[in-house]
Order: sequence, then C-alpha cells, then structure tokens
Amino acid sequence: MKHSYQPGVWPYLITKTLTPENQETPIQFLNSEMVDGKLFYRRNHFSYPHFTSSFYFLPIEGLVQTPKTFSLQEIYSLPSKTIKVVLECAGDKRELFQPKVFGEQWNKGAISQGIWKGVSLRTLLKFTGILHTAKEIVFEGYDYGERPDSSQMFSFARSLPIEKALEPNTIIAYEYNNQPIPFKHGFPLRLIVPGWYAMASVKWIKKITVIDKEFKGPFQAVDYVYYPKENDNGKFPVTTVHVNSTIQFPLNRQLLPTGIYQIKGIAWTGKGIITKVELSTDGGQTWDICQLTSKSEKYSWVPWNFKWKALKKGEYNIKSKATDSEGNVQRSEPFWNKKGYGYNAIDTIEVKVE
Amino acid sequence: MKHSYQPGVWPYLITKTLTPENQETPIQFLNSEMVDGKLFYRRNHFSYPHFTSSFYFLPIEGLVQTPKTFSLQEIYSLPSKTIKVVLECAGDKRELFQPKVFGEQWNKGAISQGIWKGVSLRTLLKFTGILHTAKEIVFEGYDYGERPDSSQMFSFARSLPIEKALEPNTIIAYEYNNQPIPFKHGFPLRLIVPGWYAMASVKWIKKITVIDKEFKGPFQAVDYVYYPKENDNGKFPVTTVHVNSTIQFPLNRQLLPTGIYQIKGIAWTGKGIITKVELSTDGGQTWDICQLTSKSEKYSWVPWNFKWKALKKGEYNIKSKATDSEGNVQRSEPFWNKKGYGYNAIDTIEVKVE
Repeated sequence: MKHSYQPGVWPYLITKTLTPENQETPIQFLNSEMVDGKLFYRRNHFSYPHFTSSFYFLPIEGLVQTPKTFSLQEIYSLPSKTIKVVLECAGDKRELFQPKVFGEQWNKGAISQGIWKGVSLRTLLKFTGILHTAKEIVFEGYDYGERPDSSQMFSFARSLPIEKALEPNTIIAYEYNNQPIPFKHGFPLRLIVPGWYAMASVKWIKKITVIDKEFKGPFQAVDYVYYPKENDNGKFPVTTVHVNSTIQFPLNRQLLPTGIYQIKGIAWTGKGIITKVELSTDGGQTWDICQLTSKSEKYSWVPWNFKWKALKKGEYNIKSKATDSEGNVQRSEPFWNKKGYGYNAIDTIEVKVE
Repeated sequence: MKHSYQPGVWPYLITKTLTPENQETPIQFLNSEMVDGKLFYRRNHFSYPHFTSSFYFLPIEGLVQTPKTFSLQEIYSLPSKTIKVVLECAGDKRELFQPKVFGEQWNKGAISQGIWKGVSLRTLLKFTGILHTAKEIVFEGYDYGERPDSSQMFSFARSLPIEKALEPNTIIAYEYNNQPIPFKHGFPLRLIVPGWYAMASVKWIKKITVIDKEFKGPFQAVDYVYYPKENDNGKFPVTTVHVNSTIQFPLNRQLLPTGIYQIKGIAWTGKGIITKVELSTDGGQTWDICQLTSKSEKYSWVPWNFKWKALKKGEYNIKSKATDSEGNVQRSEPFWNKKGYGYNAIDTIEVKVE
C-alpha cells in the first residue's frame, strides 16, 4: 500500500440528509484524538437556529430558589472544566441492524471526539439553588420545527435526572478543541453529558428549567427510547453509551496484497474505561489481544492496533471486541430494537488477501 | 418535509479511500444535468500525477504514417465538439451485489454527468494517418504506480478498437462545463468515450499509440474484465454502459409521514436512448410509467419523476426499471461477476410511511 502524501486530497463528511443536516464522520480516516470541527459528524433534528438577538443570555428557572439569567461573560469567568469526550449518536451503526430498521441509515461514523471546555452545571445551580421537590432538569435548544408525527412546533429539548445533572463532568461547554464551539455544534453554549449518547448533549442551549416530574417531550418519550418489540412493550429510555469498537483499517471488502499490516481501530464505553480489545482474523474462532496505543480514559475512545501477518491468500473475517471495567463486553448479536439505537455488536469486516 | 434554505449546508463527496483518492458523488442531492466539478466522483488507480514540465505536448505515434506531437494551442484551434456525457465507473453499485464481491464498495454514486468539449480523436488522426495494419489505439495517462498484484510500475493505460476510436464522439476533451477540466478529472486533456464505462476515458493523456494487436495492459486484461465464475472461464471485457436507473428521492429506509411525494431519479444507458422508466411501489407486482422530465438524449442521463400518493401507513418496497431504445431492460437480478462490474439490476429502496 502506498501512502504518499497527496496535496489536495482529504476526506469529507458523508452526507446522509441535508434537511435537517445529517452527515457522518469518515471514521476510518481519523488518526487524531481531537476530531477537527470540519470532520465532526453533524446530526440535527431541525434546521439550524437563527438567533434573534446578538445578546445571548442563559436563564435557569423553574423549581429553583432564585431564578437567574447568566451572561456569557459570567459563564466564561467561572471556574472551568476541560474534558475529552466521545460524542456518539444513539443511531450510530443503525445501518448494521438485522432485521433492518427504518430511520437515518448511519454507518459507523456518527461518532466524534474532542476536548470540551465549560463550566459544570452544578456550579451554575449553586447560584440559583434547587428546591427539594426537583426531579429533573430540562434543557431546551434554540432549534425547533415540526416533527413528522405532528403538526405542532417543538423545540429540541431533553431532560436529565438531578443526579446526572449534578455530576461535576456534566458541563455547559463554550469551547471545543481550544476554540469557540463551531456554530453547527452548538455555539455559543452546548450541554455536554459525558457517557450518555449524544442526544443528551443539547446544542444551542436556550433555557434550563428545573421540574418536579418526568419530562415528556417527544425527543425524550417518543424518540430515543428502546423498543425491543414492534409494539411498545418493554420500552425504556436511551441513556448510557454501550461498550463498543470500530475497525478503522482495513476497510470492509478491501482487497489486500499478502503482507504484514497494522489493523487499527478505536474502542469506547459510557461507564468505566476500556480494559481490553480483542481481535480475531478467523471469524471469531480464536482471539488475540490488541495493543492499546494510549492510556484508557473515562469518556474518551482508546485507539488500538494489532499486527497481522497476512501471508496466506484467501478471504478473512476480521472482528474486534472491546471489554470495559464494568465487565461489559461486545456480543456477537446486537440488541435489536425497532428504532435502531445503541448498536454495539462485535465489529466485523471481510477482506481478501491476494 | 421542510426544505427551507439553510446557508452553509451542502453535500460532500463520500470518501471511500484516499490513497488513491476514491470518493463518490452523493447522487441523491443532484438536481443538475451538469454536475459541479466539486461533486464529480473521483476514481483513481494511483496518486495524482506530477507533470515534470509546464510545457504539455501530446504525441501520437506507433503505426501512423506521420508521427506528430500536438501542442495544446493546436488542439484548441481545431474544430471542436461539445457533448453532454454520463461517466459511470464500471464498479458503480458494486456494494449491491449478492453474493458480495471484494473491491472498492461503491454505492450508487460512482456516476456523474457534465458537458465535455474537445476535439474528435479522428480529427487528430487525420494529421498522422494510420497504417492499414492498425487494430487498436492505446491511451496512456500520466498517472502511474505499483499494482497490488505486481512490484512492476505501470501507467494507467487503456486501448480502444479502431472503430470506437474513430467515432466522431470519441473526443480529446479540454473543457468540462465551460471551464478547463479540473485537475483531478484529467487536466489538461482527457479522453472521453461516450457510452463506455469510464475506465475507458483516460485522464491526463500522455501519449497515444496506434498498435496492430490486442493491448494487454493490466487495466485491460486483468481489471475491467467480467469474470462470471470464480475462475477465468467465460471472461470478457467491460465496455458499454448497461441500461440503468437510480432513485434519488426518497432515500432507502427513510421514514415518511403520509402525504403526496414526487419520487425522483435518473436513468441512463450506453447505447441508444432511454425510452421508458417504470416505477413500482408494491415490490414489483404492479408498475406505472414515470414522467421523463427532459428530452431523452444519447450519452446523457434523463431525470424522471413519479407522483406517489402515500396515504396509507406501512412499509413500501419501491423499484425503478429503465428500458432503452435497443430493447435492453433492467432485470430483477444483476449479472453477477467476481470483480463486481456493470451492476444494473432494478433499483430498489424500502421506506416506511407512518
């Protein structure tokens, strides 16, 4: 394989739909732990918002002792937290479900990672206090529109249970990779909920409201819900990211000359850290341990690789399997659910050595 | 469906590999009969060439009466021909073959169309003459490198039989959509062979050679050959584009509210013109005639649409089937071949109306 530098040759986002804009990251080309904003996957529910005022303020209201509206300057001046976080769309890898499901057919690239800086939500809530009846906190974005299932207008809004909202790593972010957050990714303020699928990380935050019941907005109670059956039986909400891994090289169905290759990829999980990535080149009959090429950390993916001596011609079924510190392991079969969330079966590709 | 204009939202090429650069066109977003150079699919066999001299000349040699080297100025000054041409990679839709085949997994976007201007090859050959023993004409590009199956260096080179080479529409092009050909698509000169799969349309032409035998270069005799069996039995070369169609809207696996939709797409063929496009919304049990929204012309695709009253909730299997003036019709099953060329089965998507 020649890997000479070619000026003017670079990967693009993979366009799924434009109204709203949904484009995935060409995950196989990422070598960085900080995905450039231009290659960060884009997943929207509506058109991009128009801010009606150039004065941006963030109100916190509802079941608080003292409602308060924060200016950006106030937020910037508070003690900050900087965290490297994987954001993965709950629909990542939806295309791989069998039987197939409907909805945006994300392949393996509805995932990106970078460094978010902001202020802990709990720091802001210290200014307002919260009443003892408080149960959830609702985050409403500036993006809104019609849903296919209704002619009503909805904002994109999601809630967190109080405990998750108060974790120090739940932040109101204003920087991504040492720059203001790109507009398409939530400028000026984005909620970042490490460890949860990214629908929780509300962009363009307009308002934060403390409530005493379960929030029932359609992005909480209709979408982002696992339906293990064709009907509503046994449904439950999408929250924590599942343990997962993706092979970045080689590509599925690639033809390779005989030779020695570094099979490479990433692994991540929502709770704990990745402790092990295993690789099979014989369809899962035997497994070897991969090398983790950086320290495994909470909330971020760990790159791994494996030296493969592909000296014999033939077809190979290659699989990667991650294990996390909570004892979660990728399985052969995904957890099928009607709307296609949380796919995390063992990653599999097939290549031919010739 | 909202289709409001969103500034800064546009489709990108879909990256397959970068060494060499292979990226496909997001075909579902094309409304134009002239694909912008930026969205024209890129299919390369090697790295982009480096021209060693800023003086570009095109030699015609071999079995000619008078070998001659043309300057660009001479070529620009000769009578020109302008043709709207579909260029489709022979591997377009390879991903759809069942059983699956190896090689670049092109989906439906290894196809683009635009207006090429240049001089007929026969006009140039009038200056040199050709000997009566001439059988084929070889076109060598400036791109070269190693192939996976050999450590020898090869240029990308292809031949045409004399009859095809002398057709007035076989041109040495220097403009695409009224501009110089973009570098990545063959600047300054590209052979355009209307009606043949695009491997024939050699980019960055370095040399033209008239020969008296069958050209046996690896891009002629190893690749771009149909192998209907796993072995070499019954193999034959890839030439003419097959009759074909692609549904651009809706997308496969899309969720749609009940409503009235314009299903739209394109149809094309290598020989003759498209005479009919049929559409089925019940998995091929019944077919309706689509409207062709512009005049069907040789060598270019014709856009078509169909008004679909999707008033009943449920899952729909939608198919499009094109027929050309030579009596070729898309079939249910593709012509399977080991290297995955020339896929042209009836186009099929599934959507859910809810």
